[in-house]
Amino acid sequence: MFYLIGLGLFDEKDVTVRGMEVIKNCSRVYLESYTSILMVGKERLEAFYGREIILADRDMVETESDAILEGAAQQDVALLIVGDPLGATTHTDIILRAREMHIPTQVVHNASIMNAVGATGLQLYNFGQAVSIPFWTENWKPDSWLARIEENYKLGLHTLVLLDIKVKEQSEENLLRGRKLYEPPRYMSPTVALSQIISAIETARSTSSESSAITLSSEGSLAITLSRVGSSTQKLVAGTLAELASQPQETFGDPLHAMVVVGKRLHPLEIDYAGVWAVDRESWVRVAREVYGVKD
Amino acid sequence: MFYLIGLGLFDEKDVTVRGMEVIKNCSRVYLESYTSILMVGKERLEAFYGREIILADRDMVETESDAILEGAAQQDVALLIVGDPLGATTHTDIILRAREMHIPTQVVHNASIMNAVGATGLQLYNFGQAVSIPFWTENWKPDSWLARIEENYKLGLHTLVLLDIKVKEQSEENLLRGRKLYEPPRYMSPTVALSQIISAIETARSTSSESSAITLSSEGSLAITLSRVGSSTQKLVAGTLAELASQPQETFGDPLHAMVVVGKRLHPLEIDYAGVWAVDRESWVRVAREVYGVKD
Repeated sequence: MFYLIGLGLFDEKDVTVRGMEVIKNCSRVYLESYTSILMVGKERLEAFYGREIILADRDMVETESDAILEGAAQQDVALLIVGDPLGATTHTDIILRAREMHIPTQVVHNASIMNAVGATGLQLYNFGQAVSIPFWTENWKPDSWLARIEENYKLGLHTLVLLDIKVKEQSEENLLRGRKLYEPPRYMSPTVALSQIISAIETARSTSSESSAITLSSEGSLAITLSRVGSSTQKLVAGTLAELASQPQETFGDPLHAMVVVGKRLHPLEIDYAGVWAVDRESWVRVAREVYGVKD
Repeated sequence: MFYLIGLGLFDEKDVTVRGMEVIKNCSRVYLESYTSILMVGKERLEAFYGREIILADRDMVETESDAILEGAAQQDVALLIVGDPLGATTHTDIILRAREMHIPTQVVHNASIMNAVGATGLQLYNFGQAVSIPFWTENWKPDSWLARIEENYKLGLHTLVLLDIKVKEQSEENLLRGRKLYEPPRYMSPTVALSQIISAIETARSTSSESSAITLSSEGSLAITLSRVGSSTQKLVAGTLAELASQPQETFGDPLHAMVVVGKRLHPLEIDYAGVWAVDRESWVRVAREVYGVKD
């Protein structure tokens, strides 16, 4: 059997009891190490699970998956994935490959940011499509994600915004010289995400025609940032986009971060609930009432 | 500390290691028993966790929450919730009440149908708002959920459809006579959900003006039903709404069920992935190509 096991949000204890049992009984255990990252190292996982763990980078999972699947028709092999195996990044290609090889598969689900964003107190029902914001460079500033946030926002829906993670990236120089040297991991901070969002809104406002007018605004749209969801140091911060953008970076807590652009389909209790995290509670309530039209 | 602990999707082993540790150390452990249901009984949980569990019905959680919270400033108390504590049904009111009483709270997240719907192989990014379909009665046929599915569908987004669960409901007679006798639990089957969806589409088609025209159709819209996600007996079935509606009820596996109305933002791999569950694979691929416009 080939198992895909979700490790959950934060550390070695977020695995489920079922997942833990499977890990202990597998002949080989891989850890997918490129799309997301637990806040603890491989060694701590190995000590806790009592198993050697093989790190599987993107090449291994995407192009050398046969090595992972080898023998899985006869023995049990597990691939561990932070969050849920079919969450933000699906691992359907390796399952399709297993099917071709007549290897049975089983998924052990777990929490991922896709549902743990409920930590904001916002009803998960009222989230629209999720978006990912990539790091902008000097010459590359993609902003198609803004149209998706706006699609949700026009319907009154919230948007989960996932922030870019750069793991095992090569510098241009190392890439050109074919040197397999990697940069240290980079996690997009809410500060960078907010500045890109506000800049994209401004560009859209200055270029869009009336019919495609953007209704998001830095002063009138609410957001909640999340840091280390599911850990004991979890930190949330709420405010308008502009208010949040003006906070010093340390306000938002340590990586990993995510963010929610709050839609208008809000219950007064949700405003209350998130109000404790507001950088300016009065302004939070005022925008919710006056701009969003939330009634008490 | 007041802990809200997600139990995950299916049985006693779906709790996380962290959640299990907390349960073992709490002075009192409650199980929320009205919004969702594990597929195993309280006794099995008690045996596995080695703890007595107090069942908490809706009255208890919503109006007598002070009894649950009693003493939680001094000792640890846990409320167990199937799925994730802040998933489909949020438990923010009891957390707000705990805050008022200056009781610290902590949430132990877990998988819920809101992210485990990734089992369909569809990218979670491309899901819009979720909807719940209530049982229709002879005189009460609410269908506002259809407009929400259509909002998603117009944007190319998938919709997670949660099917009604009736737990601890009283018959009209028992209600009138004030007898606290409850009907056996009822779970909406995909068959009932599909018939309500198709009927609502037909009503909308016959009454809507051109501008509000509905683009969903029973022959041209794809769906995937899910049974017992996360268990070893998990079963998925895929087809057009009409094809699925014509299947015998047992095709869909045992409760609990959920369903996805598939939007047009689809990758060919997703069609492949779900194709193995199609009641008619040729038709599945044909509709995906010709109606949805998915390119190979």
